[in-house]
Amino acid sequence: MIEVEVKVKIDNKEEISKKLKELGFKYIKKKFQEDIYFNGIDRDFKKTDEALRIRDEDGNFFITYKGPKLDNISKTREEIEVKIEDKEKMRKILKKLGFKEVPPIRKIREIYKKGDIEASIDEVDSLGTFLELEKPVKSMEEKDNALKEILTILKALNISNDNIIRKSYLELRGSQ
Amino acid sequence: MIEVEVKVKIDNKEEISKKLKELGFKYIKKKFQEDIYFNGIDRDFKKTDEALRIRDEDGNFFITYKGPKLDNISKTREEIEVKIEDKEKMRKILKKLGFKEVPPIRKIREIYKKGDIEASIDEVDSLGTFLELEKPVKSMEEKDNALKEILTILKALNISNDNIIRKSYLELRGSQ
Repeated sequence: MIEVEVKVKIDNKEEISKKLKELGFKYIKKKFQEDIYFNGIDRDFKKTDEALRIRDEDGNFFITYKGPKLDNISKTREEIEVKIEDKEKMRKILKKLGFKEVPPIRKIREIYKKGDIEASIDEVDSLGTFLELEKPVKSMEEKDNALKEILTILKALNISNDNIIRKSYLELRGSQ
Repeated sequence: MIEVEVKVKIDNKEEISKKLKELGFKYIKKKFQEDIYFNGIDRDFKKTDEALRIRDEDGNFFITYKGPKLDNISKTREEIEVKIEDKEKMRKILKKLGFKEVPPIRKIREIYKKGDIEASIDEVDSLGTFLELEKPVKSMEEKDNALKEILTILKALNISNDNIIRKSYLELRGSQ
């Protein structure tokens, strides 16, 4: 699966939340997420633009691989995610295999949905507040249309394309 | 967790099954297991005596890391296992990370239990029939007693210690 994804920094959370609702987005729920990232064994994921992470989402655990970004505007990339039953054991397996752990990224994520577009307002520990707009697509052909759709929403929210951030929270923290 | 484990090749399945029951083992169930093994990224698991595998057990999936063997008699080693929700996605993640897959090992496993000792009669595709006796222990201190206990059962089954095989099914097939 390919995740077409755009991220912007915001400083007006309440306003964005109100506007999302005006645009037809529905508030779904608030989640606490802790992401444990790992660096590669034979290559530096910072250089190859990949990611390997264990996510703890309110006590549900996932392992996720993210491939390199696929265009120059968005954070669109291949994403493969599997639900797992135990966080600490998976963490131990990855360490035994030789992956190097970096300090976890913690955030509170408010999720809104309109059709298959997901909007997340993230309050990220020590980094601030961000909006992510995301749409899953099945093929590279659908990617461009999905990106256009997301940029239209961004415009309707009065957010300029100049505010788009392609860096991950990990890169923004500068500790990978 | 440490798995104290001894394996022997057998050619008299019915007899062993009968003797296990006479020794107080209870027949639990029969399972179909398909094990997909992977070789290391930065090291050859054949040389480091490690293993990474995805197990499909009647449609339940697990990822398992096994550390090097801890003594010269048995197959005792550290084992870390996590239940996962999807086999194909996990397989894809491991391949993307750079692990190399080898052809799967398939077997039908009949499980017997007596207390915390598990006896498995394995009919392994193209390799034949084997008996595995296994006891999980928490520390290295308990390891030696568990091994003695298992060797006593082997003796009661009229199986000589000379028949003990320390190689994995993967090594026996010679295709790792």
